[in-house]
Amino acid sequence: MRVRDLGENGFIRRIRERFPNTAVTLGIGDDAAIVGIGPGNSIVYCSDLLAENTHFLRDLHPPDSIGYKAVAVNVSDVGAMGGVPLYFTLSIALPGELDLSWADGFLEGIARACGEFQVSLVGGDSSSAERIFVDVSMIGRAETGKEVRRSGAKPGDGIYITGALGGSALGLEHLRSGDAKHASVQRHLYPSPRHRVGQAVASKAHAMIDISDGLSTDLGHIVEESKVSARIYKNRIPAAAGTTDVHVLHGGEEYELLIVAPDLPATIEGVPLTRIGEIIAATMEPQAFLIDGTLEVTLKPAGYEHFRG
Amino acid sequence: MRVRDLGENGFIRRIRERFPNTAVTLGIGDDAAIVGIGPGNSIVYCSDLLAENTHFLRDLHPPDSIGYKAVAVNVSDVGAMGGVPLYFTLSIALPGELDLSWADGFLEGIARACGEFQVSLVGGDSSSAERIFVDVSMIGRAETGKEVRRSGAKPGDGIYITGALGGSALGLEHLRSGDAKHASVQRHLYPSPRHRVGQAVASKAHAMIDISDGLSTDLGHIVEESKVSARIYKNRIPAAAGTTDVHVLHGGEEYELLIVAPDLPATIEGVPLTRIGEIIAATMEPQAFLIDGTLEVTLKPAGYEHFRG
Repeated sequence: MRVRDLGENGFIRRIRERFPNTAVTLGIGDDAAIVGIGPGNSIVYCSDLLAENTHFLRDLHPPDSIGYKAVAVNVSDVGAMGGVPLYFTLSIALPGELDLSWADGFLEGIARACGEFQVSLVGGDSSSAERIFVDVSMIGRAETGKEVRRSGAKPGDGIYITGALGGSALGLEHLRSGDAKHASVQRHLYPSPRHRVGQAVASKAHAMIDISDGLSTDLGHIVEESKVSARIYKNRIPAAAGTTDVHVLHGGEEYELLIVAPDLPATIEGVPLTRIGEIIAATMEPQAFLIDGTLEVTLKPAGYEHFRG
Repeated sequence: MRVRDLGENGFIRRIRERFPNTAVTLGIGDDAAIVGIGPGNSIVYCSDLLAENTHFLRDLHPPDSIGYKAVAVNVSDVGAMGGVPLYFTLSIALPGELDLSWADGFLEGIARACGEFQVSLVGGDSSSAERIFVDVSMIGRAETGKEVRRSGAKPGDGIYITGALGGSALGLEHLRSGDAKHASVQRHLYPSPRHRVGQAVASKAHAMIDISDGLSTDLGHIVEESKVSARIYKNRIPAAAGTTDVHVLHGGEEYELLIVAPDLPATIEGVPLTRIGEIIAATMEPQAFLIDGTLEVTLKPAGYEHFRG
């Protein structure tokens, strides 16, 4: 059965039956959803898109991974503000000739993410298109005044990383080379956002970002927004098994958190934290330095940049 | 200059400079935006996508119209709940070889919409892709308990339409046939959402929807969700100049409001309202009837449906 055979209304009905909105004032099926966040909270609000042949290949990536990831990356963004993810809208464009099993697998991934991250699909839009396109926008809450930005890093602060880096980039390589059974592939397909760590450190962290574009690029965002510099030590950066320096320093889609704080424990919410360096005053332009043994080099942002392919 | 030459970071910088966030706690440039809606309000939340070759053609539609529409259709959705539109995120995918003038024209349309509708761009995502894809999600506020759904229509209620119908479908026909100067084309390219009317009738209306898929389809949503039937009179439906029955009854992208209420004045916020019929009890399946002189026919939803294209 193809998506075309089900039709738009049939597809929306399928989504509505699968995602009943019991916890919100009004969910899927009207012009807009009605949700609340409670007094004393601010709305944390973001969106993240996945485009076929840019973020995934139809023949390579399982559809449930695309659904799961579309939600997980937004959960990661809300968590990187110290927020609690709550509700999301899904805008999805599908080719009419697409087999319905793709759409069903995709929704299965969405459902899995809803369960794991305790978030609810409350609305969105669907359309036909020549390529698959998915955009999720998400609302979360953060105690007003406790949101953690990219801009609060101060000289003397420690730079911490949750988990280990490089696994997602390695997994993508294995997936591309046909070795889908390699352990790192799961990490690439079903990333674990660290929103619970983000919430737990919200009152202590001075700055925070999730590593979606690669450590070099995302640390670059922190120093630029905070107008400081950073010094990190290569031998302290936790590397996933089998990864190279390039995976660890520049690999994207990690969804680990980079946290800038005076002092953090070794484990939060069961997730290991590693201090990889510290914030220093910017003498000229804000930049990041990498200490490698006796060498100190400037760590230029070298993560993936769109449009330039 | 092509989009590729500017790069993703250059493109984001361009957006950030153009849309400074002075009214929100935190706008573009972090993992997520931070916004507030004030006490006593609920969040009205929606998203709407525009896909190249489905919703628009690159060679036919001016880029500023795409930007304007992407915002306007969401303003319309928030207004159709009786809400006040406030903030939006923009997720946009562009081919690297696209001329930068397209992107600049698009942002110009976004900026025009921000000014006209008093809404602010607060975040989003950008990516490369083979086709242009735009998704806007929007947050508005509505006084808690005063949101107007599709499901509240009651037998005896009047059915009202803002403005006149059919002009957008006629405009699209003229645009396609190369007659871009025809007056109806402006209506198709730069629709006027009726959110101010929606807000004004929020305390009186029992049900409301914006006409995005065509009168027949959207009235169908009202009767289905409200579990009632509807009777409308063909000679009472305000038709835009030069339109046929097909344009008026089934033409989409009108963004007029269909309001179900006991009684409404002839004009609200300077916009004419016309009573075109009434809600009746559903004897069997909820459906809409069209009275045409001495004939009564069932009005089947015949608006555009995606995937079947």
